[in-house]
Amino acid sequence: MPRQSPLDLPHDDPFGPHNLPYGVFTTPDAPDVRRIGVRYGNHVLDAGAAAAAADSPHAALLGHPTLNPLMAAGRPVWQAVRAELRAWLTEEARRPAVEPLLHPLTAVALHLPFEVADYVDFYASEHHAANVGRMFRPEGEPLTPNWKHLPIGYHGRAGTVVVSGTPIGRPRGQLGSPSGHTLPPFGPSRRLDFEAEVAFVIGAPSPVNTPVPLSGFHDHVFGVCLLNDWSARDIQSWEYRPLGPFLGKSFATSVAAWVTPLDALAAARTGPPARDVPLLPYLDDSAAEPGAFDLRIEVALNGHPIAHPPFATMYWTAAQQLAHMTVNGASLRTGDLFASGTVSGPEPHQRGCLLELTWSGRDPLRLPDGERTFLEDGDEVTLTAWAPGPDNNRVALGEVTGRIAPSAR
Amino acid sequence: MPRQSPLDLPHDDPFGPHNLPYGVFTTPDAPDVRRIGVRYGNHVLDAGAAAAAADSPHAALLGHPTLNPLMAAGRPVWQAVRAELRAWLTEEARRPAVEPLLHPLTAVALHLPFEVADYVDFYASEHHAANVGRMFRPEGEPLTPNWKHLPIGYHGRAGTVVVSGTPIGRPRGQLGSPSGHTLPPFGPSRRLDFEAEVAFVIGAPSPVNTPVPLSGFHDHVFGVCLLNDWSARDIQSWEYRPLGPFLGKSFATSVAAWVTPLDALAAARTGPPARDVPLLPYLDDSAAEPGAFDLRIEVALNGHPIAHPPFATMYWTAAQQLAHMTVNGASLRTGDLFASGTVSGPEPHQRGCLLELTWSGRDPLRLPDGERTFLEDGDEVTLTAWAPGPDNNRVALGEVTGRIAPSAR
Repeated sequence: MPRQSPLDLPHDDPFGPHNLPYGVFTTPDAPDVRRIGVRYGNHVLDAGAAAAAADSPHAALLGHPTLNPLMAAGRPVWQAVRAELRAWLTEEARRPAVEPLLHPLTAVALHLPFEVADYVDFYASEHHAANVGRMFRPEGEPLTPNWKHLPIGYHGRAGTVVVSGTPIGRPRGQLGSPSGHTLPPFGPSRRLDFEAEVAFVIGAPSPVNTPVPLSGFHDHVFGVCLLNDWSARDIQSWEYRPLGPFLGKSFATSVAAWVTPLDALAAARTGPPARDVPLLPYLDDSAAEPGAFDLRIEVALNGHPIAHPPFATMYWTAAQQLAHMTVNGASLRTGDLFASGTVSGPEPHQRGCLLELTWSGRDPLRLPDGERTFLEDGDEVTLTAWAPGPDNNRVALGEVTGRIAPSAR
Repeated sequence: MPRQSPLDLPHDDPFGPHNLPYGVFTTPDAPDVRRIGVRYGNHVLDAGAAAAAADSPHAALLGHPTLNPLMAAGRPVWQAVRAELRAWLTEEARRPAVEPLLHPLTAVALHLPFEVADYVDFYASEHHAANVGRMFRPEGEPLTPNWKHLPIGYHGRAGTVVVSGTPIGRPRGQLGSPSGHTLPPFGPSRRLDFEAEVAFVIGAPSPVNTPVPLSGFHDHVFGVCLLNDWSARDIQSWEYRPLGPFLGKSFATSVAAWVTPLDALAAARTGPPARDVPLLPYLDDSAAEPGAFDLRIEVALNGHPIAHPPFATMYWTAAQQLAHMTVNGASLRTGDLFASGTVSGPEPHQRGCLLELTWSGRDPLRLPDGERTFLEDGDEVTLTAWAPGPDNNRVALGEVTGRIAPSAR
């Protein structure tokens, strides 16, 4: 029996020709030479080499060590490159040239696929925001009065965005109020958490004083990736008044190694939840194309599934977030990353962080390897997701995984 | 009488050989060729050309279009380059070679001198925080319970940091609660403000999980510049609960065109205010070298001085801010920018923003060209500052100025 070609995928492979996410990889023989790769099944196509072999007009764009130049090129180029990639991977006549350019995933190292410009994190799940409000501000209404009028967001630390697989050092810091002592408690966080999120990556920039309307979403957003916004709840709850999260989040944010092109998720578009209050014109998507994405996320802790957050239930869409983020005149840069905030659905098993899943530690999770309230050293959190694709196929997003390392000192 | 040389400065020129701030400039004949410049009096030395002419080992570092490579090189290199610059500008024998490399300030264009990595803004003036607390949260204590235990900060938008002189478009946005109507009020901000701040620029990076102690301040901070954190108070006060400022700040932040080396401010070091509560060891500077800087700021509105904020009165020092920012394990990148927050002293004329100076618009300022509560289109805000230097000389910081342009649409 002949060896099976990596180009022969099962027709329902979730990383088939309808997906084609982009990443950046190195091979062991050239660990300093970063190359753009495209995932196909469990292999990585060396996209720059494939483009050079095909004498593609986009060979230079695909020959960079990051995705940024391709991302900056704009949607017509993204679509042309995607069509070329599909042809290279599926046309019979190209097999002899393309097959040698495929590397098994297990034989490459994956890197942060793009240089992050600014990182913004939103707070777009009504279920998450209400649950957190009940826990952090039990004296008040679960949602702040502004919550249904605008997508609340804040800037995070771009310099500590790391690729899936990077170990996450347990952060140290002030863990709460002095409460009777002279000094606040200090040390490694005791309430370390993950947040299951979906992030969007800006490709085409926008100038200052030029807000991006809802309809401009496709022209600026290059792709989508899973994101884990690691959070130290004890540090966060002590520091966040009045200027928001800072050290409780800034130690690390993990993103997947694969950026899924927006066009791969066309079949996953769906209508957002009904709005409870009228929206200002720049946010009103009642006449726009469906702005939500039907992504089904799974959270696994040490290999055990612990939650299934449904991205389609988010109150605010990514298009609304982009319109809001720029309505004040702020510009966009290639590599800007904005994330949804924790994805939590209405059901208890759909909650996207331990703070909610254990109700702030009151209800521990029972796992085969013991109970959990918050993350312990050595714990590994893995987010995966899939969306409906064309022809009843699934489109998988690249996983984002990270293991907790003990505090450094 | 012979033409006076730009190398002949009055001995008390605040941009004399004891100062030597760095910037990036272009000349009209080569508007695309950005060059590193050093300010000397009212001239700019082409530092790259001077280094090449002197056959300096640092010619390559000074030949870049931004300061980032020089900033990344670390303190021993900063000190060596500074000594070379002083020699080039002051040694008699070098005059014929150096004089032609000086351009009048009026003949060059100045640019953002470094690529901003992450931008963090602190909230370090007790007087400012207490005044804002009284206005924004009149029902509670002026300071939140954490305020004297840690330097509160948050991440701002790096992509909208602009150089002094850039026009500032009036931001649009949601201006407050719907209060009886179905939609929040929307339009150009009616409460546009400045914030007089001092910013610190990271040169040498630090790895993850390696906090920078108070004593590491000099090894990582390359220099200092004035910063205006433009703020739309109506947008900010509606959006900021619970995750902090976002669109009320992200439209623009202006920095000076000149970065003053930390070593130029050695004579300006002074002790910080007495602490009211004990501090954790990583923040306790009672045995450290004096952590405050005696910078005297002036704020001018359309040329009229309206405030004189004293930087030495800040409760938290930049060294404490740096120690706090990294205590959780967050890394530093070359180009990280962190700012003090509004500098306000205890006296009314020492307040660093209109929100405080007019007490939220209640007490308008009387200027020769009319009353002001908040900024009007066409208003120009200019921050200048000086510090005590060696030999009773003054060290001036480069100004930061900006004029308000009408909302774009």
